[in-house]
Amino acid sequence: MKPYTEMTADELRGELLELKTQYKKVQALGMQLDMSRGKPCQEQLDLSMCMMDVMNSASDLTCEDGTDCRNYGQLTGIQEARELLGDMMENNPKDIIIYGNSSLNVMFDTISRVWTHGVMGNTPWCQLPEVKFLCPVPGYDRHFSITEYFGIKMIPVPMTPTGPDMDIVEKLVSEDETIKGIWCVPKYSNPQGISYSDETVRRFARLEPAAPDFRIFWDNAYGMHHLYDHHQDHLIEILAECKRAGNPDLVYKFASTSKITFPGSGIAAIATSPNNMEDFLTYLRHQTIGHDKVNQLRHVRFFKDIHGMVEHMRKHADIIRPKFEAVEQILKDDLEGLGIGQWTCPLGGYFILFDSMPGCAKDIVARAKKAGVTMTGAGATWPYGNDPHDSNIRIAPTYPCLSDLETAMKIFTLCVRISSIKKLLEEKHNVEAEV
Amino acid sequence: MKPYTEMTADELRGELLELKTQYKKVQALGMQLDMSRGKPCQEQLDLSMCMMDVMNSASDLTCEDGTDCRNYGQLTGIQEARELLGDMMENNPKDIIIYGNSSLNVMFDTISRVWTHGVMGNTPWCQLPEVKFLCPVPGYDRHFSITEYFGIKMIPVPMTPTGPDMDIVEKLVSEDETIKGIWCVPKYSNPQGISYSDETVRRFARLEPAAPDFRIFWDNAYGMHHLYDHHQDHLIEILAECKRAGNPDLVYKFASTSKITFPGSGIAAIATSPNNMEDFLTYLRHQTIGHDKVNQLRHVRFFKDIHGMVEHMRKHADIIRPKFEAVEQILKDDLEGLGIGQWTCPLGGYFILFDSMPGCAKDIVARAKKAGVTMTGAGATWPYGNDPHDSNIRIAPTYPCLSDLETAMKIFTLCVRISSIKKLLEEKHNVEAEV
Repeated sequence: MKPYTEMTADELRGELLELKTQYKKVQALGMQLDMSRGKPCQEQLDLSMCMMDVMNSASDLTCEDGTDCRNYGQLTGIQEARELLGDMMENNPKDIIIYGNSSLNVMFDTISRVWTHGVMGNTPWCQLPEVKFLCPVPGYDRHFSITEYFGIKMIPVPMTPTGPDMDIVEKLVSEDETIKGIWCVPKYSNPQGISYSDETVRRFARLEPAAPDFRIFWDNAYGMHHLYDHHQDHLIEILAECKRAGNPDLVYKFASTSKITFPGSGIAAIATSPNNMEDFLTYLRHQTIGHDKVNQLRHVRFFKDIHGMVEHMRKHADIIRPKFEAVEQILKDDLEGLGIGQWTCPLGGYFILFDSMPGCAKDIVARAKKAGVTMTGAGATWPYGNDPHDSNIRIAPTYPCLSDLETAMKIFTLCVRISSIKKLLEEKHNVEAEV
Repeated sequence: MKPYTEMTADELRGELLELKTQYKKVQALGMQLDMSRGKPCQEQLDLSMCMMDVMNSASDLTCEDGTDCRNYGQLTGIQEARELLGDMMENNPKDIIIYGNSSLNVMFDTISRVWTHGVMGNTPWCQLPEVKFLCPVPGYDRHFSITEYFGIKMIPVPMTPTGPDMDIVEKLVSEDETIKGIWCVPKYSNPQGISYSDETVRRFARLEPAAPDFRIFWDNAYGMHHLYDHHQDHLIEILAECKRAGNPDLVYKFASTSKITFPGSGIAAIATSPNNMEDFLTYLRHQTIGHDKVNQLRHVRFFKDIHGMVEHMRKHADIIRPKFEAVEQILKDDLEGLGIGQWTCPLGGYFILFDSMPGCAKDIVARAKKAGVTMTGAGATWPYGNDPHDSNIRIAPTYPCLSDLETAMKIFTLCVRISSIKKLLEEKHNVEAEV
């Protein structure tokens, strides 16, 4: 088919008529399909059911070092869990603190703690007239929600295919000491599914921030979440790179097993330098006596070691790979060559980013909603929900079953086509009016 | 035996000589006994091992309302858990939020949130020149550690046998709007094991604080922790009482299953008014996607209902009652009538408070330590670790086995006697010097 962008107004109107007929048919079906969040599907959850078998009333819940997991204590987590998550995060177990069930919670707590108590002896952020964060865009809405909650001014930085635009990051961070942090999802990013290049990571490690309390919030949520066995992105380990660059304290690195075992019932962790860890412990020892060690031990006994976790992640991949491929195939079949959108084809993670023509995203999402398909809200991937081009739409393929997903995606592409034609006709009309 | 307080200096010196001989013998045994923290013992932990059997790989982890506990969601907790903890806390399930593994953590987070964002639209505490908390003394060291961490000025309020001195509480709270809260352990208090009288609770509910953002931090940690079947303290439910008094938003009430199932692997909860709950949700929805629902369901399936929990607590009582009674018996046998100390005989909770002669507590604890018995540090039960009379010592009978406990307590009473005699001789010497 001819690109929409090259069609005459009459051709577009003809096409629109046909698409609207299709849309009405779909609408009449009264479907309810939810693609709004990056949730694992039931088959993925079933993969971890055997974790419920690794402990029973006859089990010895004692750690290798003699710690009774059932009682109080072990502020930084049990050694076995630090070792397993050390292997998962590619960090030394001694640089790891195991937390509760959610890395998002650890990130919130970290911002909250520096807000009230500052970073390593620096002024608490609550006492500063202004605090800013760099936000690579499009990005993860729950990150932005945390910084917005604390009144931190968010500055969008464009993402490129190799990560955030590092020219801009370097410039801003070195010039403005009110910039205190940056949100990063460095591997299979949310929502693009791209991974930071070696050069990007090296430039991050070599940053020279004006603020001594600037920290990179490195949310490596999808470190284990490959879709393919061999065709995988590789990410340089940031802590080691920072250490080599003479910047050992620059990074807080977060991860969890949320999308590995059960979301909400996994274990989260932070990896950071000894200085930062000491700083974390100053609040942690007031905040809690310790996190859930029984659940830590349950995870260790379920996976046994990192190889067990890798094999487990292959099973996840087998379930969700066909979904990603189906989404990409439908986008290709229905939209390729029409000149009305682009999309990413990630090798891992939980999302695909669709980029519509400027000014169409909100309309597409609203239109899909009316036909029974709930997408992540347009704008959600930008700070303050404000996508200036109104073009980013996050697609979350994992949760629906394959047939629902295919149905939803066909409705989605239909909506993309309708919205785009309307926009093109509107533009043509405006041009004529100007002439 | 004649009270030490009525002995002559020579008699005291004779007694001291004999006690020191005993002390040296004990010291030579090189024992290591830890009575420092309120930890359940192994037999208590064993009571909950069957909780490891209530779920296996064949279990359906779906809630009654259809929620899949294995996936994201349910910010306020699963309904079944809210009902169980509602029965436990004597509150309506709709007034309850289920949190993670630790109520201490919820208290820390609550202070942290009002520090950064204020209470229900009032000025964030971090923006105020001074924030004060009332601290009934002696009290719980980990409470004081949280308020100290935030730089909140702590004002001690004396405890009486019926709870905090309410004349003082009412006066201070109504006069000083920089007083923003009070720490309470209203039932089987830490460290006395006393419970607030009906009048005390009613006066709390009727407080008229100068500060609109004053809140009572009601840590009902030992609500279920009776030692006896019939002989039990009863505490008036504070939320209902506040509602009746026209003060519905005055209280944050905390509880957990930490000393019911596994410390660190239980579930915590807050009960509070709808207005306060709405306030809590404004931060909770940024902080997390939800707490560990699988563990919530595990607890519900283990206890089934509140009767199951009550029966479970009777088993705890059967294990620790003999320990409390042994401590009280040894204190009675070794110290009664000597005029050198008093102690509480609680009907529940985790602690007994020993009150030495003024100026002896630190010496007693240090002396016990040298003989191999670790007690909670003297002063720990006061804000800033500063017990002005140097007389409060917290005894934690639950963790050691009965024979170790008896040994430790005999060493303890020996140390009390030695320290007291030294103090009495010192006083006599001072008096003589003055004469």
